[in-house]
Amino acid sequence: MSVMFINLFEVPAGRDEAFRALWQQVNTYMQGQPGYQGHRLHRALGGDARYRYANVVTWESAEAWQSGHDDGFRELVRQPGWREFPNTPALYEVVDSNQPATQARA
Amino acid sequence: MSVMFINLFEVPAGRDEAFRALWQQVNTYMQGQPGYQGHRLHRALGGDARYRYANVVTWESAEAWQSGHDDGFRELVRQPGWREFPNTPALYEVVDSNQPATQARA
Repeated sequence: MSVMFINLFEVPAGRDEAFRALWQQVNTYMQGQPGYQGHRLHRALGGDARYRYANVVTWESAEAWQSGHDDGFRELVRQPGWREFPNTPALYEVVDSNQPATQARA
Repeated sequence: MSVMFINLFEVPAGRDEAFRALWQQVNTYMQGQPGYQGHRLHRALGGDARYRYANVVTWESAEAWQSGHDDGFRELVRQPGWREFPNTPALYEVVDSNQPATQARA
């Protein structure tokens, strides 16, 4: 069963470029991991959102998601630049939808 | 341009049924609003997630989203039962994806 990983990022106004550069590094790495199926990075339209960025990622399974967050991943997110951008991550399953399940897959 | 509305819900463990009943009322109403394109309700797989539910909704435009949250909507969310389930809503646009844009639409 596909699972959804949602990660919410606190990004101060004006710091988008620095955030996006760090995020891109991690995302490029994760796309190469087995079981990674796709992502959508959302940016808030209003400046007052608590989480100005939200990444919604589809993984083949909870096991693939866990294995994908390996030493290479940890090395990337250990960079000091990330301290500026706290994140709130959690793993989910879709429990209600009026969209075909296949749309969640890459 | 389609926009994404993400709403994060704090739902105490064991209160899923009460939350889902309230959410279903609102969701049924919103599905009938012009410009509503689709949703996915996510439930956390772990019990320790800050937001145990996350709803990701696609709207045709920011204007449709705003108009859709009308008096009928406000009446539904004014019900006392909602006080138990704080929510964190924000409107987003997708700024990075490896999934075709059409997959975001119903």
